[in-house]
Amino acid sequence: MSKLRMGMVGGGEGAFIGEVHRIAAAIDGEIELVCGAFSSDPERAKRSGQALYLAPERVYSDFRQMMESEAALPENERMQFVAIVTPNHLHFPVAEAALKAGFHVMSDKPATLNLEEALKLKTLLEETGLLYGLTHTYTGYPLVKEARARVAEGKLGKIRKVVVEYPQGWLAEAPEDDIWRLDPAKSGCSSCMGDIGVHAANLAEFVTGLEITEICADLTSFVEGRVLDDDGSVLLRFNNGAKGVLMASQVSVGEENALKIRVYGETAGLEWSQQEPNTLWLKYNDKPTEMLRTGYGYLGEMATTYTRTPHGHPEGYLEAFANLYVAFAEQVRAREEGREPAESAIDLPGIDAAVRGMTFIELAVAASASDVKWQPFPVN
Amino acid sequence: MSKLRMGMVGGGEGAFIGEVHRIAAAIDGEIELVCGAFSSDPERAKRSGQALYLAPERVYSDFRQMMESEAALPENERMQFVAIVTPNHLHFPVAEAALKAGFHVMSDKPATLNLEEALKLKTLLEETGLLYGLTHTYTGYPLVKEARARVAEGKLGKIRKVVVEYPQGWLAEAPEDDIWRLDPAKSGCSSCMGDIGVHAANLAEFVTGLEITEICADLTSFVEGRVLDDDGSVLLRFNNGAKGVLMASQVSVGEENALKIRVYGETAGLEWSQQEPNTLWLKYNDKPTEMLRTGYGYLGEMATTYTRTPHGHPEGYLEAFANLYVAFAEQVRAREEGREPAESAIDLPGIDAAVRGMTFIELAVAASASDVKWQPFPVN
Amino acid sequence: MSKLRMGMVGGGEGAFIGEVHRIAAAIDGEIELVCGAFSSDPERAKRSGQALYLAPERVYSDFRQMMESEAALPENERMQFVAIVTPNHLHFPVAEAALKAGFHVMSDKPATLNLEEALKLKTLLEETGLLYGLTHTYTGYPLVKEARARVAEGKLGKIRKVVVEYPQGWLAEAPEDDIWRLDPAKSGCSSCMGDIGVHAANLAEFVTGLEITEICADLTSFVEGRVLDDDGSVLLRFNNGAKGVLMASQVSVGEENALKIRVYGETAGLEWSQQEPNTLWLKYNDKPTEMLRTGYGYLGEMATTYTRTPHGHPEGYLEAFANLYVAFAEQVRAREEGREPAESAIDLPGIDAAVRGMTFIELAVAASASDVKWQPFPVN
Amino acid sequence: MSKLRMGMVGGGEGAFIGEVHRIAAAIDGEIELVCGAFSSDPERAKRSGQALYLAPERVYSDFRQMMESEAALPENERMQFVAIVTPNHLHFPVAEAALKAGFHVMSDKPATLNLEEALKLKTLLEETGLLYGLTHTYTGYPLVKEARARVAEGKLGKIRKVVVEYPQGWLAEAPEDDIWRLDPAKSGCSSCMGDIGVHAANLAEFVTGLEITEICADLTSFVEGRVLDDDGSVLLRFNNGAKGVLMASQVSVGEENALKIRVYGETAGLEWSQQEPNTLWLKYNDKPTEMLRTGYGYLGEMATTYTRTPHGHPEGYLEAFANLYVAFAEQVRAREEGREPAESAIDLPGIDAAVRGMTFIELAVAASASDVKWQPFPVN
Repeated sequence: MSKLRMGMVGGGEGAFIGEVHRIAAAIDGEIELVCGAFSSDPERAKRSGQALYLAPERVYSDFRQMMESEAALPENERMQFVAIVTPNHLHFPVAEAALKAGFHVMSDKPATLNLEEALKLKTLLEETGLLYGLTHTYTGYPLVKEARARVAEGKLGKIRKVVVEYPQGWLAEAPEDDIWRLDPAKSGCSSCMGDIGVHAANLAEFVTGLEITEICADLTSFVEGRVLDDDGSVLLRFNNGAKGVLMASQVSVGEENALKIRVYGETAGLEWSQQEPNTLWLKYNDKPTEMLRTGYGYLGEMATTYTRTPHGHPEGYLEAFANLYVAFAEQVRAREEGREPAESAIDLPGIDAAVRGMTFIELAVAASASDVKWQPFPVN
Repeated sequence: MSKLRMGMVGGGEGAFIGEVHRIAAAIDGEIELVCGAFSSDPERAKRSGQALYLAPERVYSDFRQMMESEAALPENERMQFVAIVTPNHLHFPVAEAALKAGFHVMSDKPATLNLEEALKLKTLLEETGLLYGLTHTYTGYPLVKEARARVAEGKLGKIRKVVVEYPQGWLAEAPEDDIWRLDPAKSGCSSCMGDIGVHAANLAEFVTGLEITEICADLTSFVEGRVLDDDGSVLLRFNNGAKGVLMASQVSVGEENALKIRVYGETAGLEWSQQEPNTLWLKYNDKPTEMLRTGYGYLGEMATTYTRTPHGHPEGYLEAFANLYVAFAEQVRAREEGREPAESAIDLPGIDAAVRGMTFIELAVAASASDVKWQPFPVN
Repeated sequence: MSKLRMGMVGGGEGAFIGEVHRIAAAIDGEIELVCGAFSSDPERAKRSGQALYLAPERVYSDFRQMMESEAALPENERMQFVAIVTPNHLHFPVAEAALKAGFHVMSDKPATLNLEEALKLKTLLEETGLLYGLTHTYTGYPLVKEARARVAEGKLGKIRKVVVEYPQGWLAEAPEDDIWRLDPAKSGCSSCMGDIGVHAANLAEFVTGLEITEICADLTSFVEGRVLDDDGSVLLRFNNGAKGVLMASQVSVGEENALKIRVYGETAGLEWSQQEPNTLWLKYNDKPTEMLRTGYGYLGEMATTYTRTPHGHPEGYLEAFANLYVAFAEQVRAREEGREPAESAIDLPGIDAAVRGMTFIELAVAASASDVKWQPFPVN
Repeated sequence: MSKLRMGMVGGGEGAFIGEVHRIAAAIDGEIELVCGAFSSDPERAKRSGQALYLAPERVYSDFRQMMESEAALPENERMQFVAIVTPNHLHFPVAEAALKAGFHVMSDKPATLNLEEALKLKTLLEETGLLYGLTHTYTGYPLVKEARARVAEGKLGKIRKVVVEYPQGWLAEAPEDDIWRLDPAKSGCSSCMGDIGVHAANLAEFVTGLEITEICADLTSFVEGRVLDDDGSVLLRFNNGAKGVLMASQVSVGEENALKIRVYGETAGLEWSQQEPNTLWLKYNDKPTEMLRTGYGYLGEMATTYTRTPHGHPEGYLEAFANLYVAFAEQVRAREEGREPAESAIDLPGIDAAVRGMTFIELAVAASASDVKWQPFPVN
């Protein structure tokens, strides 16, 4: 047996998220990057490939060419899946090309430029039967998995209230350089909701196992001249009667990447913060608050499976990201070996999360523009 | 000169907030409790008075009787102001009786049972020219005053976003005993907004110096059979274009009294939490987050004036409460001495905060019931 | 019944600790300040008395005169105990005068200028049978009492390790003004150990119920020209075989009053920090760390008795200090009523803590100067 | 150019630290594991190699055989350096074999079984001129590098006080299984000091740039029947007159891997905790405490170089470990390319840290057994 072979589209020199995907894929020694279309600029693509020690003939500047060439290689040489790490507007075209060429897809989020593409993607996946993973990174943290498990086991009682927030400060000023996330043609209809609000919504549903059924939104573009939202607050209603608040912001000066979720049930509450990801708080009215920490024996199977080091050895964002690749790799292996994937691989966000995410983004924008208070969350 | 003489209505044996007011008044040695109508039950009133070492003849079971009897005492003996610490429905009747008898009033919040009473109270105050203080406790913390000062000085730039939250968990279950806060006849139209949401709204305006102009609300009664709200989320819009979120909850299991405010301006952000009240965070995009601590020389005059001990000696809720009494006592002294009160005494919430508070409570309830998204905040 | 009548020696205008004692005594409405010798400067004494609304005839400039005059007053008028809040060198002379005049004594720490005086004080107390309280403030915190109770109940198993630290930064530079704590004639043989090291040693013994039996010390005067120590580290050995470290410093720049204790037993550990006094951590190897918070029903009787407000309403240094006065007042009341004091009043540090404290200070200084590694802790 | 080729000795199935080294080496895509002697048990070695997708012919069960076989391969195929991840007693024999066969060495700590071996290793390195890196992991954290830089730049003034602590709880009970760290034949003369005390001592010297010159130690074996120390407290003196305390413990129940350092200079203090590694505190007496966070532009070059993700995306233990491999890889590349390594690669602990570390361990054990208070730190 050998490592899984991965190709990559996007992520040339200097790109943040491409490097994150490469580290995440490499960290556990299960996946090997074998080819890439890192840039449509041939020189940049070439330099990127060299820096990654790739064989020059497997470095492409056209993703369609890559699909074609790789598909023509012998089965035990060609890539087995594609990681898509481009700006949003290319997610769908690349995924489409990959699926049509027979390759599984691991995609950065949001899944597509708009909901319409997400629905097309869903259809394509159904037609091809291929695998699709969506990197909602924060679902990869062991203690997020623990939180989800505790809620599922009823440890909090019926869920009543969900508060999820995702403040950042990096777009508080008009940036000097081009930021593709602020360009509707590349980013879609939303900046703040599209980049981070969608993570928050996904996390709320992932942890609680609930579905958002209605929202009321107020999005804002605080920086003059900005077309897309850079801040938004959303009231949520869930399918079990729970209520919630989702806040996301790119203009909360001094905030880093402060995703945080709090869930309150009838008998207990929980709290998790991405910037201190190895701590999960469980709260009660009648006994001391419990501080759960990654790596301890008292955690459940999912949290344990996705932890590499003993407690007290902090794992972070890259390990969480890698956990998504672990799950996706297991799905690919299982497919190739004709077996069911391990239980632990099943919670990787896929096309359903993709569709719900794009729905959320478009709905938040529409709801904010509307005078009607509550907007139903459509089921696609 | 002697200590200021205070009377009290409410706060008999076992009452929480009455004891808090007494401690707050006593702590700095400037105010002496001289009389009280602690309970309408004569025996309970008497026992309460004894436990407080009061002269038996100045312990009353009828607050109107107290006003009359005290007014009949010589000027240098009778009480100089009344502290009202009853359930909400008595705030106005007691205040009215006190003002009509010529006594200044220091009242627990919310100011009255409903907005109508608050407006009557405002008229009465205008007519009598007497003093009125409202114990929005959290405005008494030195670092809340520092936060307000920093915003006022423009240290955050133009304010864009305000997040204020006040989760508690104590009403997550239907309580065994009677809780007057859940009884509309004593509490008014709201439990959660009336008890703590109003603190949060006050704090948001106090710190930012802004006014709420529109709200969108979703209140809930999670516990079966409960008439009043025990949870609510409110979207806010402010008079300078800033946006905000206010969350309050009495069913957030495991939360204590977790009032917290975050304010983001164009150039900096701040964060303060009531449970760690001696720390104020200032956040920037381009330099390290600063942790300000009570008692340091780098703080402004207001914070310094209202701090009793050197840094590292934590002051808390009772000292914050006492700071309201310090301000009120200075107002009373100044009035009696025919001079302007010290600058430091001016930020005590008064009748304007009272009217805005009652407006907020009623508006939140109405907004939650409405299908119209945005409700204007009426100016009374 | 009336309030207990307290006199005070020291604590004139501008003095920090005198004001703290006055607040602590006043806060619960059980003690009334009736007289004082606030300063040996008659003008300053007079102004101080006026500011405290005292009767002019009971404001003295000579503490011996005060003892005499008060003793001559009718029993139901004269003070019932004296609070001593002078610099260290006056603690003993004042206490001696008070005891000889028949007054109970509540003294600031360290108890005396040196061990010899402490032993004399012990003899005097035995001779007079009067009451003596020593304000080791930190023993007054509810969660310190809880920590002590948990250890006593065996919840940590046999204690193995104690780490107590008390870093401050305020003496990192040579101060411009006179600081009496740096003057051996007023402070005694040590600055750092005498002012704060002794608190740390007391806290270690208070929480664990153990006794220090041997120490090894390294004290330093970091600031040039300083006679007394401003920093010290001490290895500890306890009477049950436990080991420990005590660190105290007045030159740890940027530290406030960061007293912290950690205790590890065979089955659990605990941690408490004075700057976040309403949180007590209990730690285990096989289950989540527990965060205990002041005011919860799961706390023991002592912690509950000494808490004034519901959880989430932070109490601090002044309330802890007040708790010492609550205990002392109960001792005095019980004595006057010819009964045993309540259980809750028994843990107030008294003459034994005084003697051990002075022993610790002198031993730490001697041990630091010695080449012998371990110095036995003498039992006096 | 291709990836650097690494061999590994130790780290077979189930070994913690071997997997850590592999992840650390793989994470940045610069190093490829090409061979290994993972176990002396041929079957276990084989299985380990398979799980790592290694060519079977390059999986050895005898490290000397590996050195010989690899040395016989063509230069562009054979491994370029060896990672040693065995128990302590094999560190030196493996390093010796590697160096004699011409391979650079990256070794886990402590460097050797005893000081004598460390000195031999130093000689061997001088003779062969080969490279040697020692994985004092915590020096790899960006904010540890920042702390070191700030001290070096004089931002704290002359250093006075260093407090370094490393509590763990995992050996609080006698373990059921064999723990090689408790076996003197495999671990050396110390468990606690050898495993973690040495990290703490290294960190103190790394951050401050000072050298320990004298120590006074008290080590303990708390668990019955245990031969080696499981706890120790050490007083430190440094070559500039600074004082310090080093605490390490394996029986501090409930502690994870709580390495923490505090350094106080004449004008500022700093604090860093391994369990929250992306935060560095700078403390002052006259301005707010600053919270520095990984990934910000205000950090120095070293911290920035060794950070992979934007602020708010927590990096942890594995990334810190990887940073040591980044530095070592750069040293190897530079050597092969006949150039000086980048500045950033120079702070990797090497043979000098190895010798000082082994000196510290042996000295701590000897000092604890001695009645002489201060033991000079020998310079080797």
